[in-house]
Order: sequence, then structure tokens, then C-alpha cells
Amino acid sequence: MVASSVSSAAVSCTLEEMLESKEKEMYQQQWVQNAPDPPCFFREVFENVKDTILPPNNSKNVWSTLVVNDNQQPLYKRVLVLLTEIFPILASLRGYNAHKFKFDLMAGITVASLAIPQCVGFATLAQLSPEYGLYTCFGPPLMYAMLTSSREIVIGNVAVDSLLLSSMISKLKDPIQDSVAYTQLLLTATFIAGIFQLAFGIFRFGFLVDYLSHATIVGFLAAAAVGIGAYQFIVLLGIKKFTNKSDLISVIKIFWTSLFKDRSQWHPYSFTLGFSFLCFILFARFMGRRNKKLFWLPTIAPLLSVIVSSIVAYTVNSHQINVKDYKVDVLGEIKGGSLNPISLLHLNLSDNFLAPLIKTGLTVAVISLTETIAVGRSFASLRGYNLDPNKEMISLGLTNIVGSFTSCYVASGSLSRTALNYSSGAETTVSSIVMALTVLISLKFLTRLLYYTPKAILAAIIISVVPGLIDIQKAYQIWKVDKLDFLACAAAFFGVLFASVEMGLAIAVTISFAKLILVSIQPGITVLGRLPGKDAFGDIEQYPMGLSIPGLIILSPKSSFLCFANATLVRERIERWVNDGHVEEGEGGSNLKFIILDSSGLTNIDTAGIASLEGLNKNLISHGVKLVIANPRWQVIHKLRVGDFVSKIGGRVFVSVGEAVDACLGLGAAKMANTV
Amino acid sequence: MVASSVSSAAVSCTLEEMLESKEKEMYQQQWVQNAPDPPCFFREVFENVKDTILPPNNSKNVWSTLVVNDNQQPLYKRVLVLLTEIFPILASLRGYNAHKFKFDLMAGITVASLAIPQCVGFATLAQLSPEYGLYTCFGPPLMYAMLTSSREIVIGNVAVDSLLLSSMISKLKDPIQDSVAYTQLLLTATFIAGIFQLAFGIFRFGFLVDYLSHATIVGFLAAAAVGIGAYQFIVLLGIKKFTNKSDLISVIKIFWTSLFKDRSQWHPYSFTLGFSFLCFILFARFMGRRNKKLFWLPTIAPLLSVIVSSIVAYTVNSHQINVKDYKVDVLGEIKGGSLNPISLLHLNLSDNFLAPLIKTGLTVAVISLTETIAVGRSFASLRGYNLDPNKEMISLGLTNIVGSFTSCYVASGSLSRTALNYSSGAETTVSSIVMALTVLISLKFLTRLLYYTPKAILAAIIISVVPGLIDIQKAYQIWKVDKLDFLACAAAFFGVLFASVEMGLAIAVTISFAKLILVSIQPGITVLGRLPGKDAFGDIEQYPMGLSIPGLIILSPKSSFLCFANATLVRERIERWVNDGHVEEGEGGSNLKFIILDSSGLTNIDTAGIASLEGLNKNLISHGVKLVIANPRWQVIHKLRVGDFVSKIGGRVFVSVGEAVDACLGLGAAKMANTV
Repeated sequence: MVASSVSSAAVSCTLEEMLESKEKEMYQQQWVQNAPDPPCFFREVFENVKDTILPPNNSKNVWSTLVVNDNQQPLYKRVLVLLTEIFPILASLRGYNAHKFKFDLMAGITVASLAIPQCVGFATLAQLSPEYGLYTCFGPPLMYAMLTSSREIVIGNVAVDSLLLSSMISKLKDPIQDSVAYTQLLLTATFIAGIFQLAFGIFRFGFLVDYLSHATIVGFLAAAAVGIGAYQFIVLLGIKKFTNKSDLISVIKIFWTSLFKDRSQWHPYSFTLGFSFLCFILFARFMGRRNKKLFWLPTIAPLLSVIVSSIVAYTVNSHQINVKDYKVDVLGEIKGGSLNPISLLHLNLSDNFLAPLIKTGLTVAVISLTETIAVGRSFASLRGYNLDPNKEMISLGLTNIVGSFTSCYVASGSLSRTALNYSSGAETTVSSIVMALTVLISLKFLTRLLYYTPKAILAAIIISVVPGLIDIQKAYQIWKVDKLDFLACAAAFFGVLFASVEMGLAIAVTISFAKLILVSIQPGITVLGRLPGKDAFGDIEQYPMGLSIPGLIILSPKSSFLCFANATLVRERIERWVNDGHVEEGEGGSNLKFIILDSSGLTNIDTAGIASLEGLNKNLISHGVKLVIANPRWQVIHKLRVGDFVSKIGGRVFVSVGEAVDACLGLGAAKMANTV
Repeated sequence: MVASSVSSAAVSCTLEEMLESKEKEMYQQQWVQNAPDPPCFFREVFENVKDTILPPNNSKNVWSTLVVNDNQQPLYKRVLVLLTEIFPILASLRGYNAHKFKFDLMAGITVASLAIPQCVGFATLAQLSPEYGLYTCFGPPLMYAMLTSSREIVIGNVAVDSLLLSSMISKLKDPIQDSVAYTQLLLTATFIAGIFQLAFGIFRFGFLVDYLSHATIVGFLAAAAVGIGAYQFIVLLGIKKFTNKSDLISVIKIFWTSLFKDRSQWHPYSFTLGFSFLCFILFARFMGRRNKKLFWLPTIAPLLSVIVSSIVAYTVNSHQINVKDYKVDVLGEIKGGSLNPISLLHLNLSDNFLAPLIKTGLTVAVISLTETIAVGRSFASLRGYNLDPNKEMISLGLTNIVGSFTSCYVASGSLSRTALNYSSGAETTVSSIVMALTVLISLKFLTRLLYYTPKAILAAIIISVVPGLIDIQKAYQIWKVDKLDFLACAAAFFGVLFASVEMGLAIAVTISFAKLILVSIQPGITVLGRLPGKDAFGDIEQYPMGLSIPGLIILSPKSSFLCFANATLVRERIERWVNDGHVEEGEGGSNLKFIILDSSGLTNIDTAGIASLEGLNKNLISHGVKLVIANPRWQVIHKLRVGDFVSKIGGRVFVSVGEAVDACLGLGAAKMANTV
């Protein structure tokens, strides 16, 4: 609209008007070139980092609430605000009632009945005495429940950390020959991991976990679920021949051997019992979803299964006391004992082991944080709230430091326990406290009561959680939207399933970053055309109704950063365009007068980019074509100006593509007028 | 302009007109949402890779010119075209005349007189017998001169490759105890390096050298020049105590020791001679630049220096036959011999050494290519032509493969010889052939004639080249334009100077890529305003005269890729903007009705980006603010559509910011009308 009015007006208006409009135009054109200097790159990066790392301005410093008394509130209220900031559980206890407690109590007890056999097993995996598993399942969840802002995360010892620690520390001390020293080193590694986690949180490095993209987490969760499911299916079968390796291939191998080669391994009674209750739990969940009135059924099903199956197991086992093969495989004797003993003075920070322990601590800290925050975020997003990773890092770090003083080894967010907690209907972190206290009671008094809980029932409970973690619909959505995101998702899935958690996540993050670089440096060029009836210009592939304007081409680079990695290729493409294609299409082969480079998509340019634009300009001039820059951003126009490029193209820089087109048409008309 | 006309027209026009325009508007708005599907990401990457790697369509396949007879040309002409394609030297020989040959002859002889002592020295560095240096200085340059499309590159054995090979191969075989086996392994590594270089060229991986950015090359060249200068200054001083290490610190150490601690080391006669001729050469160059008529002076100066100084040295040395300390340090006896012996059957590809040899070969191949192409490009850009890296890779690979069959070790573009060749006025690669033949003649007959050439003179010739390689003005330009580019330049300079070539280049490339990622994922947001009197919108920081529009904010992300790494941060910033700042500024605190997201800079989006936009939209709705998308690119609108986001924001997607603003104002007006 603007273009046509100016170009047609250029013929009819008087000289005076032309001069006046010329003057105004000249003045307005200076806007582009006389923009104030943008902040230097380092300052911009610093601002971004500051903005990312420092707490937002509106959330006041935790401590200042106590000292500065803005609202003239009484001291106790200010103390309460401060306490709520430190212990988010206090906030969730407002409006807490018996109804909510019922859910938390049930969830806590259910999770405890799952956590006890798990933590004993994982302690064995870490080559520690079983009681360390129980200690880790009591202290850390209790403390973390007070500190976390998540409502679901249940922490405790997990398989990955246990495996990592045992493989790294057993190189330093033999766990069998010198069990005490080995345990001390392991607790010291826990202490160091806690320090790292605390530091990450304090320096607000939480944004680093953003590098685990959405797609990666979907893949990770699915893989973890499949792994847990397969592992627990072996327990369900009653197979006792466990392996240290929890990857899928080892599990399938055991499954194959036990089921087809050596049938004596599996335990039909256990399996029948477990499978029946698995069906019951799944049916209960189905009914709960179908009929809103039965909402309590899926919640109570796991605990109900534990109680009923324990009674069944007691009956069966006590009647067939002499036929060992037909007994149900139950939890059996658990070594009871006192509260967590203090281990503060046993930490071994001697020079001999410090360097490898720091390495171990850092590795475990990162893996543990990644897992905890991935787990926490997944369930937070299911419930529709956001988790502040920095806060979680501080909480987990403090928990692990205190844990290392009280005979607990590294605790992380446990996927299976968190999922069970969520599906058992936990309302607040009180469920974690209930779980911890249940573990404590078990540790002190109830080891004999849990004696008859069949292992297969716990396996059934975990397996029933698995389907909810595999989000095939989301994966399909990712596939539809972005193929490379899906590749990252698939890499996370297969990597975690067949290699290891670290490997899977590392591959997925690498793919994500490779994609980032590929997208940023792609050397593609789009051709813009005028959209009919509008003053807008669009990609003619995107808008096939776009009209080309005779005598000029409007090109827009697809990349946002014309730099060393793509500048030569972009230049070559434009030159090839001019040399081969377009000129021949035009009338007489020399119709093309202007190339307008729409740089609205370019956020930055570097010296290589400027050099290639200079080369392009020289080449175009030799073809009788003029280069025009439209809508350069702040950084770009600044650099073009200090790089002396603006003067080399005769100051042909315009605030928008429309103005650039008008100016080109106007210049063309003026030139035609001159020749006439 | 469009905005104001529509918004004012909305009040006055009749209902019929409104409906008609509404219909048209509806139809036009569909343009954005009904764009054809863009090519899938993999296809786009494939197209880009194909475009980058495959030769351009207009340059026909080399072999097809022979078979397909398009232009009915006689066979001999087609054979000639084919030969010219393979041997670019044939093209440069068209119009070759005695005048050009004079320059080439002089340059060739000058370079040869520099290359002979150098190649003997570098062969010693590689722990080989000196004659291998001469072999490498004869065969490879001869062959490469036929194949290369560069007019300046002189190849031969260089310091970096020699050092790398000796340090890596001496781990496999002791060069002193088993000299024959060591030499065989070194030639085998050369063969493997050649295979790699050939493969890189054939698969057109030449674009990989683009990752050495402009800034990096400026830094690299300067560092190499300083290093060579310092090293040659020791030769100029006549110090004989050489070191294997060519890094600056080692050189300075020798310099310090020789000059201040143990003065007997240096050789005043040699230095006086060398320094005089250095002054002469520099003066000659100065005169040549000053007075156009004396253009031949700088060209002839190096050779003149060699001849005159040899005569001086002969006179001095033959008169003072018994006083060793006062003799000028001359090249002395060079072990003459026959042509390059065939070494094809000596290559050792046995299993024992294959893996480490492949590693060595790959490393040397990459370093050698990087150096050759960096050197070639630098001088090509001085002469104003482009070098095809793929062609050079094939040429160098073939040369090294044939070289390894004829007792030559890895040859690369030599910076000092290429610079000398350039400054001696070489016109074509004939100078390389002259050099090679001169080396051959020296090897066969003239070793006794070169006996009296003082080493200091050669050093003076190289030092005189150094200042031209240090481009301080360019470095300052880089500093002005881009601070982080300058950092890469400085890293390349100091890394190459004080650490090693590989380290310096690696750091520089890492900095360049880190910058690329930083620029691409920066979470910044710019606020756009309407430019007065125009239908364009611009960053209000860049255009301080930009006007804001009441009731809406136009935001534009600075990043081009809303993805896992920045989506959360971008979302948080926009939400903070809405929650804290802008709403309070407006009238009554709830004036803000629309946020227009100008996505013209966004080239792509991933699932995390869509998820964060969905979160943002929910948050904005709860604040009573509507999200509007303006000017989405092809990939972005496609993904927003398949990600079901367009329907979630009620289809408020517009082709340009202007239309989005009009629509928002129109909607506001319509709403106001409704309430009235």
C-alpha cells in the first residue's frame, strides 16, 4: 500500500513536495543508522546470567523479611513468614485436615511397605550392610519433607546411585576385606556430593537442568518405567537369582534362563498371588476412573493388597511348613536396631582419597540431582505446578550433608516410590514423614510383622505404576511436532534402557545441542514476496500467493546469526542465485537491479559475516546489482556501522522491507526519469 | 497507516462493508494457518548437506566432459578441458610468457635457497636422516604444483608436522636404535594421512575448515609469524644450540641463555652479515613501495642477498681457515644423492602398529590440512580469489600418498616458504616446480655450490616476511566489531604462541562455538514500538522515538530458536513483565489486554518451546491478557499448528505485527461497542 502510493506519487508530485518528502525521508532514514550503541556483548551476557542466576527482584531475600519490617507486622508473623520460606511444608499445612491426612497416612504406609524391601536391596547393591538402607530410608525423607517445595518427591537410596557409588568406591577400598573403611569412604562421598548439591543450589545453577529437554524427560521416564517393570516382573515370578545389573538385557537374560532353561527358579505360588493382586490393582484403578464414586478404590488397593496377601502368605506358609517349594516368598527377617547412629566423626577426608572422592561426589551429585529434578518436575507437571530447581538443590544438598553425619548414604528422588506416593493419593509431604516414621517403627518394632508380606505383592504394586509413566501420546506428539526432538526422546529411552542413565541422558543432551547448532547455523535462504492486499511480505513457499516485484529480489537468511560457520555458504547461495537462476528468468537477463536482504531475523553478525557481506556486495556490483539491507536489529546495524559496511553499500539501510521496496522502486523510477 | 485506517474505519463503515471486509479478513487470515507443510527437518538438513557437499550443478562432472559431447567439440579439445580440470596449472599456463616466467624462476630459486636448509632442519626435528627432508622438498611440491588451484602455496615438510610425527611415532619404535623401522612407520603414517586427506576431499568435507573463523586465522597467522620470527632470530644470531621445541618460551630461553649467560654461543660475524642483509631487504621493500619504478627491487633482494652473502662468506671463510670462531656459519656439506628412492614396499601396515598409526595419520592429516588451507586462504584473499578447500584436500591427499611411496614424509603448506614465494613475486605454481627442480639439482650436483650460503641470510629473508603476516589493523577492526570474536583471535594467537598449534586452534574454535550457542539461546526479550509516521515497528531501545500502543505490548524474543535451553527463561521474563512492571504503569492496573509476540525472528521452535508458550498462555489468561502471535515463520506456524497451540490461543495469528495491532485495536473497539 505504502509502496504503490509512493511509486505512483513519485511521478505526479511537484518538485517541492518531492524535496520536502525527500528531506523527511532522509531524516527518518537516519533513524536506522543513528541508533544508540547497544550494550556490549559481555554486558548482555552478564545481564542474562544475572537475571538467570539471581533471585527475581519481587521475591525478597529470605532473611531480610525478619530484619526489615515494611508492613509493621508483629515479630511472630515475620518469623512465620521466614519459617514458611525455609520450610515450605508449613505452607501446605495451612488448611490441612483429617481428610487430607487420611490420604497422606495411607500413601505413607503404602510407600513404606515398598521402600523397606527396596532400600535393603539397594544397600546390598552398594555393598553395604542392609541396615544402612533402612537408615537412608528414614532420616533423609524426614528432613527433605520439611525442606522441599515438591508435594510428591519421596527420596531415599536408589539403584543408580548405589551402583555408581559401589563401582567407584570399591576401587579405593575392598568392601569385603575392609568393610568399615569402605563404609566410611562411602559416607564421605555422600558428604561431598551434598556439598556440591548445596553449592549448585546456592549459586542458582538450577537452570542447568533445563538442558534436559522435555523430550529427554519423556524418554527417560518411559525407559526407567520399562526397566523397573522388567526388574519387578522377575520379583513377581518369584525368581531369586538376582543380578547387580538393572539394565534390560541382564534382566531379560535372567528371565529367559529362569523361565525356559531352569524352571525350578520360578515360584508359581508367588506368581499366582502377585499376578492376582496386580490384576486387582489394575482393575481397581480402571473402576476408579470409570466410576467417580469409587475414587477411593485405586487409592486403597495397594495397601489392601499388602494386608490381604500377608494374611494369605501367613496361612499358606504356616500350613506347609515342611514343603519349601510351595511356600510364598515373603520379606522375612529384617535386622531391627536402634536409630541412625552418628557417623560424623567417621568421615574420612584424608589426602589419600580426597581427589577420587571429590570426583565420585561430583558425579553422584549431578546424577542424583538430575534424577531428583526430572522425577520432581514430571510429577509437578502432572499436578500443574512449577518446581524451583535451585530450592530443590539446596534441600537435597542439606539433606545429604546431614545424612552423611547420621549413617545415611546418597539419597535421591526415587522414581518408583514417588510414583507410588502419587498414585496412592498423597496430598502433601506429610506422606514422606509418615513413610519415614513407618520405616523407623519397622526398624525398631515391626520387623516381625512385615515378615509375611510377599515380595511379589510389592512387585505387583510397582508394576501397576509403570503404564502411567509411559506417555506414548506425548511421544507421538513430539514425533509430529519435531523429528529431532523425537530422536532425543528415543535416544534417552534406548540409552537409559540398554546402556545406562548417564549414557542415555548424555546422548539426548548432545542431540539437543547438535540440533540447536544445526538450526542456528543453517545456511538456507528464503525468498519473500508481497502478500496481495497487504503491506506485509512473506516467504513465498509459506505464502504461495506472495507476489514478486520486478527488478528486485527480497531474500531473508534462515539463520539468526550470520557467522563464520554459515556466512560463506549464505554468500555462495545468494551469488549462485544471481549468477544462475534469477537473471535468466528476468527480461533481457539484466532486469535485476536490487537485492533486499531482510535481516529482521538476524539477531547478530560476526566479522566473518561482515566479510562475506562485503564480498557479496563486490560481486553484486560487478553484476550491476545493488545490495539493500532492510530492518536490521540493534546489534546487527551497530556492527555493520562500526565495520564500515553501511558506507560501502551507500547507506541503503531501511527500517522495514516495505520502505526498502519503496525506495528501490523510487530509485528505479528516478533513474528511468534521468535516462529519459 | 494501515492500522489507523482500519481502526478509525471500524466506527464509520456500514454493517455490509464490515461483513464483507470481515469475510475477506477471515480468508486472508487463513493464509497464516493454512500454509503448506514445510519440508521435514531431516529433509531440510539433507538438502543443506547436499548443497554444501555436492559440487554445484553448473560445474559439470569432470569425467562427463570426456564422454558426453554437448558442443560437438573435437576429442582433443575435450581431453584438454578434462586435463585442465584435473591440472589447474594448465589453465594458468595460457598466456604464460617469458616475463611471468622470469618472476617464477626468481621466486622458485629464492624459495629453494630457503627451503633447502629448512627441510634439512625439519627432517632432523622428525628424527629422520637429512636426505628425507630434501626428498620431501622435491617430490611433493612438484606434484602439488600440477594439482593445486592455489597460485602461492608451496608445500614441503613443516615444523609442526615434523614435531607431531616424531613425538607420536617414537613411542612405537626407537628412532636411534631402530632407525629403519622408525622411518618405515613414519612413511606409513604419511600414507594414512594422505588417505584421510583424500577421503575428506572426495566427500567434500571442505566446509569443515570454515569452522576456523576469520578471527581465528588472523590470530593464528600472527602467532605463527611471531614464532617463526623468534626462531629465525636465533639463527640470525648464529646460535647453534637448537631445540626441538619451536614454541616461544623455549626459543626465548635459548635466546636468553645464549645472549646473556654464555656469550660464546652467538656469532657476531654471522649476525652482522645477516642483520645487514635484513636491513637491505627491508629497505628494498620500502623503496619498492615508495617508488613504483623500483618495483623489481624487493623481488630481487632475497636472491641478491643470497648471492652476495655467499661470496662474502666464501671470501671471509677461505681467508680465516684456521680461526674457527671468526668464520661465517654457512650451510656446509649437504649429503647429495640420487632421486627419491621408491619406498612403496617398505610401508608397514601390520596389525601391531595399525591402530596407533591410524590415530597419528588422522591427527597429522587434520593439522596439515588446517595449516595448508589457512595458509592458502590467507594468500588467496590477499590476491583476491577464492580457494576450493575440497580440491586442495584431494590434491594434498594424493600428493602425500604418492610421497609416501617415494620416501617423502608428510608435506603441508609451509607458511614461511609460501610467504617468501608470494613476496618474491611468484606468478604461478611454476615457481614451485622451479623450486622442486632446484632442490633436485642441489641434491644431485649443487650441494657444493650452496656450501657457502650463510644460514643467517636465510633467517634474514624469513624475518623480513614476518611483519606482513601480523595484521594489527584487522585485529583492531575485529575488536571494534565483536569482542568475543577478538577473544577467539587472541586465544588463537596466545594458544599457538605459548602452547601449540592444535591447542590454540582448538580453544579458538571452542570459543567461536560457545559464542554461537550463547547468541542462539539468549533469553532476552525486546519491546517493540510503532515508528512514528511509518507502518513499521522497532525495538524501542534501538529506536527511542518508537511509540507504545495503549492496551498492548509487542514483544520479540532475541533468540531465534525457542527451545529447551531458553523457553522457560523467556516465559518467566514475559510473566514477570506482566506481573510486575507494565500492569501498574497502565491506567487502573488492568489496562493491558494483549501481548503480541512478534515471532519474525524465530526460525524454529521445539516441544519445550511450545510447552512454555502453553504455560504462558494459561498464565496470561488468568491475568485477563490475550496472547497474539505475529508473523510466524514457516517452521514455527507449522509446529504451533500440529502442536495444537493455534487453537488454544483462539487462532490469533497474524501475518504481520501491523495486522496484529489492527486486529487487537479492532477487537478492543468491538468489545467497547458491545458494552455500549
